Amino acid sequence: MKEIDFITKYMSGERIEGWGKDMENKKWIIGVDLGGTTIKMAFVSDAGDIIDKWEIDTDLTENGANITRDIARSLDEQLHKHGRSKQGIVGIGMGAPGFINFENGSVFEAINIGWKNFPLKSELEKVTNLPVAVDNDANLAALGEMWKGAGEGALDLICITLGTGVGGGVIINGQIAHGIGGMAGEIGHITCVPKGGYRCNCGRRGCLETVASATAIKRIALNRFQDRPESRLYTIYQEKRDLTTKDVFDMAKVEDALALSLVDDVARHLGSVLSNVAILLNPQKIVIGGGVSLAGDVLLKPIDHYIKTFTLPRVYDGLELCKATLGNDAGVIGGAWLINKHLNNDV
Amino acid sequence: MKEIDFITKYMSGERIEGWGKDMENKKWIIGVDLGGTTIKMAFVSDAGDIIDKWEIDTDLTENGANITRDIARSLDEQLHKHGRSKQGIVGIGMGAPGFINFENGSVFEAINIGWKNFPLKSELEKVTNLPVAVDNDANLAALGEMWKGAGEGALDLICITLGTGVGGGVIINGQIAHGIGGMAGEIGHITCVPKGGYRCNCGRRGCLETVASATAIKRIALNRFQDRPESRLYTIYQEKRDLTTKDVFDMAKVEDALALSLVDDVARHLGSVLSNVAILLNPQKIVIGGGVSLAGDVLLKPIDHYIKTFTLPRVYDGLELCKATLGNDAGVIGGAWLINKHLNNDV
Repeated sequence: MKEIDFITKYMSGERIEGWGKDMENKKWIIGVDLGGTTIKMAFVSDAGDIIDKWEIDTDLTENGANITRDIARSLDEQLHKHGRSKQGIVGIGMGAPGFINFENGSVFEAINIGWKNFPLKSELEKVTNLPVAVDNDANLAALGEMWKGAGEGALDLICITLGTGVGGGVIINGQIAHGIGGMAGEIGHITCVPKGGYRCNCGRRGCLETVASATAIKRIALNRFQDRPESRLYTIYQEKRDLTTKDVFDMAKVEDALALSLVDDVARHLGSVLSNVAILLNPQKIVIGGGVSLAGDVLLKPIDHYIKTFTLPRVYDGLELCKATLGNDAGVIGGAWLINKHLNNDV
Repeated sequence: MKEIDFITKYMSGERIEGWGKDMENKKWIIGVDLGGTTIKMAFVSDAGDIIDKWEIDTDLTENGANITRDIARSLDEQLHKHGRSKQGIVGIGMGAPGFINFENGSVFEAINIGWKNFPLKSELEKVTNLPVAVDNDANLAALGEMWKGAGEGALDLICITLGTGVGGGVIINGQIAHGIGGMAGEIGHITCVPKGGYRCNCGRRGCLETVASATAIKRIALNRFQDRPESRLYTIYQEKRDLTTKDVFDMAKVEDALALSLVDDVARHLGSVLSNVAILLNPQKIVIGGGVSLAGDVLLKPIDHYIKTFTLPRVYDGLELCKATLGNDAGVIGGAWLINKHLNNDV
């Protein structure tokens, strides 16, 4: 049953096979995924299925001071709607875009939100009266994919998100690798053009992000037009005076030579970085998410080819490359996993 | 107190401050480190200190079939010498050079020993009547350094061993990263010369091992002589018709230009690979061991310089680069840690 059908049936009160009273009596878990524009929230079952999800706007005024209050209010409304009290809730797992202090659940800095040394865990516990666990958004997305998505069942897992930037999460032995300063997983800043690379937002040159993010793919495509007036990409650009990453992949699917060479370059860079990551960690799965991953096989197949070419055969044999399946739900599902794990004292 | 003084005092029956009866009553742990030439063994205290250590020859006849029996006999002799029964022993943690099945403690393959699908854990348990835990030798060395060596206190730790080859061990959240096929930690096979690299033993080209192992340093030095007759390295070579890695570092210490440029190349390659590893895992410590690490600061300082140059500032800030301190004892101490951890059900 698709999740949306499930929710529709559930909300209408219809009886659902294998569900019903049993699930009613079981406690729900709350996942929260804070972004710069919206806050995604969900009730999640102890099996990791979304029971209901919704979102509210992120209030960026007063350096994000109202965010925890807004979350608490919205949760109260939704609980009321479901006729459920807080006794029926396990706790809240929340992801924030920034550097997290994992010892005490505070946020060192979340630039897009305006938080600096913000005691997120304790603030949210205070306004909700529920136990809270906090991690960064990329790590929660990785945990979500491990629990219920493309990484299901894998204990050693790399997630890489190809969007405006390139982010990542590393799971080893079923646990997120945070590193000493919460910086682990910054795959986007692994150097892959050692000489003459493009300047990255981080101030360095030649990071993976400068060749494999949506931003980078568009930039590189626009730079290569002038010599290739025969390309269909050039025609598209002339028509709409713009070009998207999706155009590049769409034209690669119909074998436009320029588009194919652009995609091949992206795949070769990703393949080279991921093959080295795989040699270091021998993961069972590498999960590729983010907007760029929607391109599907036209990108995944050449990445797989290059990983096979560059990595150790035994490492390649154990590895599965797959597309993320949870989309925007990964964060809230990962959040639910996290608070469950914390309350069971497994972390 | 130095370990050797301690052992001398201990063996002579002399009373040792903070030791004595209390330690006599505590159980000892056994660490075993199997190599292609010798088997190193030790009694280790629950605090990770070596109480006594010894070694026996590795019997490579009959595809290593006698090894577990030899270990059991040697242990019995040493227990007898110390007047201690097996009731006073916690168990055995053993490292083997090969691919380990961590589920059941068998060895998929240990080429230098002759084992193939050898049930090491169960065989050694049968002949010793003690609980046994098994891992590969590089991982145990990393655990040893984490427990009592240069990595002490760090939960996120990379060990890299620069010897005939280049090996490694990755510890995340205080646990060894094995990966799905036990291949994690193969830092020596991360590609660092993407184009035109030297052929590696693994069949690929340009692996870190082809530029940073003792073998590689010697090979590269010998190749660069012809153009540099003014180098003191060339004089050394003419005198003894050979050259060691130690010669290269010794001459770098006295600022021979060729030697300095060789060391700079090694450091740049190591710095570039380790900076990317650090970006991925944000470790607290990178511990450099193996024969080449004995060069000390003449190698470590330029590696540190290149890591600082190549990695993210926040990652560099949290990182300490240090020389392994346990030498050949790392494996047996790591073995003791492992069996302790297994028996406490922490793994």
